[in-house]
Amino acid sequence: MSANSPKTPTPGNRTAVWKSITISLTDDIAQGRYSSGDKLPSEAQLAARFGVNRHTVRRALAAMAEQGLVHARRGSGVFVAAAPTDYPIGKRVRFHQNITRGGQIPAKRILALETRAADKTEAAALDLELGDIVHVYDGLSLADEQPIALFQSVFPAQVLPNMLTSLEEMQSVTAALKACGIADYTRLETRITAKLATATQALHLRISEGAPILRTTGVNIDPTGRPVEFGRTWFAGDRVTLTIDGQEP
Amino acid sequence: MSANSPKTPTPGNRTAVWKSITISLTDDIAQGRYSSGDKLPSEAQLAARFGVNRHTVRRALAAMAEQGLVHARRGSGVFVAAAPTDYPIGKRVRFHQNITRGGQIPAKRILALETRAADKTEAAALDLELGDIVHVYDGLSLADEQPIALFQSVFPAQVLPNMLTSLEEMQSVTAALKACGIADYTRLETRITAKLATATQALHLRISEGAPILRTTGVNIDPTGRPVEFGRTWFAGDRVTLTIDGQEP
Repeated sequence: MSANSPKTPTPGNRTAVWKSITISLTDDIAQGRYSSGDKLPSEAQLAARFGVNRHTVRRALAAMAEQGLVHARRGSGVFVAAAPTDYPIGKRVRFHQNITRGGQIPAKRILALETRAADKTEAAALDLELGDIVHVYDGLSLADEQPIALFQSVFPAQVLPNMLTSLEEMQSVTAALKACGIADYTRLETRITAKLATATQALHLRISEGAPILRTTGVNIDPTGRPVEFGRTWFAGDRVTLTIDGQEP
Repeated sequence: MSANSPKTPTPGNRTAVWKSITISLTDDIAQGRYSSGDKLPSEAQLAARFGVNRHTVRRALAAMAEQGLVHARRGSGVFVAAAPTDYPIGKRVRFHQNITRGGQIPAKRILALETRAADKTEAAALDLELGDIVHVYDGLSLADEQPIALFQSVFPAQVLPNMLTSLEEMQSVTAALKACGIADYTRLETRITAKLATATQALHLRISEGAPILRTTGVNIDPTGRPVEFGRTWFAGDRVTLTIDGQEP
């Protein structure tokens, strides 16, 4: 332990020290010394740089993680978090386009594809009878390989009998709907609320259990007004900002 | 303890019992036996009704609180939570109208009114120079006397010199802007993300620290396109669902 870190600092002094480390590291990130995705120096290296013990470094990093500036990956270190991705909620839902527009690489991962009876909420949203058959797509959306959202899309099987096969081939909902004859679709209404991540959601999104989640639900309709998709999305709150343009005429 | 509640149930049985209590009480709420804002019977009364011990009742109520169905008020009991308020994010921001449309009584409470120099974010949003003077309104929005959101509205002082006096008189931003000569204003862009409630926010909103928060930021412009308000709102996630109509032409 260096001469700069007395073994029994007063609580007041210790607070000042870890805070000054967060300010210094936050500044490094803002100045571009460490960029999004970069691994920060180890606790030992940071302790040496600031002349403090590792406990103080850990406290500073924990405070920065709480603000969403960095995230720890068990066993591999602490990384600079990506700046939140802007995600426009426009008339048309186009995941691929939304992400590429922000200069990131979009990807979708299938978690489950299943065919089953519609529950009450799904039947109401899709204008079906309770028990009518639906195709269900559970998946993960990624931007630059970082998970940004979990989603569940529900499609009326009678209208879109081949939807699961198409999804399996293409992953993209837009492409699969097109293959099923729906060349265009638009949002009817989007509902947005905030939730806390469950353990399962946290695992998929690589965030902490209890981290903030933006949950959206919405129905998409084809040009004749027929519902073709009921979707629920759980965005990692620290990684996504939904944007709504108020200037639509 | 009644004969129905053996002192040493197997873990499996105990799980089933508290779950069946949540199902039963949730059903009571859905059926209208207990309405939004009603106080549930005491733990002792529920224990007697279900023939279980109070620990089991507590576990059931905790699970329901986590789902946002009920909330405990220290020392006064457990209350049925209000159904989330739908809050439309339309072209025009009209708090009063949004709440009355849902059959609730809107109210605003002033937390602070102050005049100070604009910070970087505020200056950029309002098209001001850093350090230009702004009027700032910190307040609380309520629906049926329940806090639903904290907000901070920032107004350019040069454009709206009498804004604070007007706000003090009327509380409503719409009314105060009108009194200052701005008869109409519209949203430029709204940005939405999810956060966890800080201790101070939790206190004002009467929610738990770490509860989910929907945070919106937006700029309002007058009919000539001049920014007249930069607003940040922190909605209690369990009490508000933001809705976006996708069918604007």
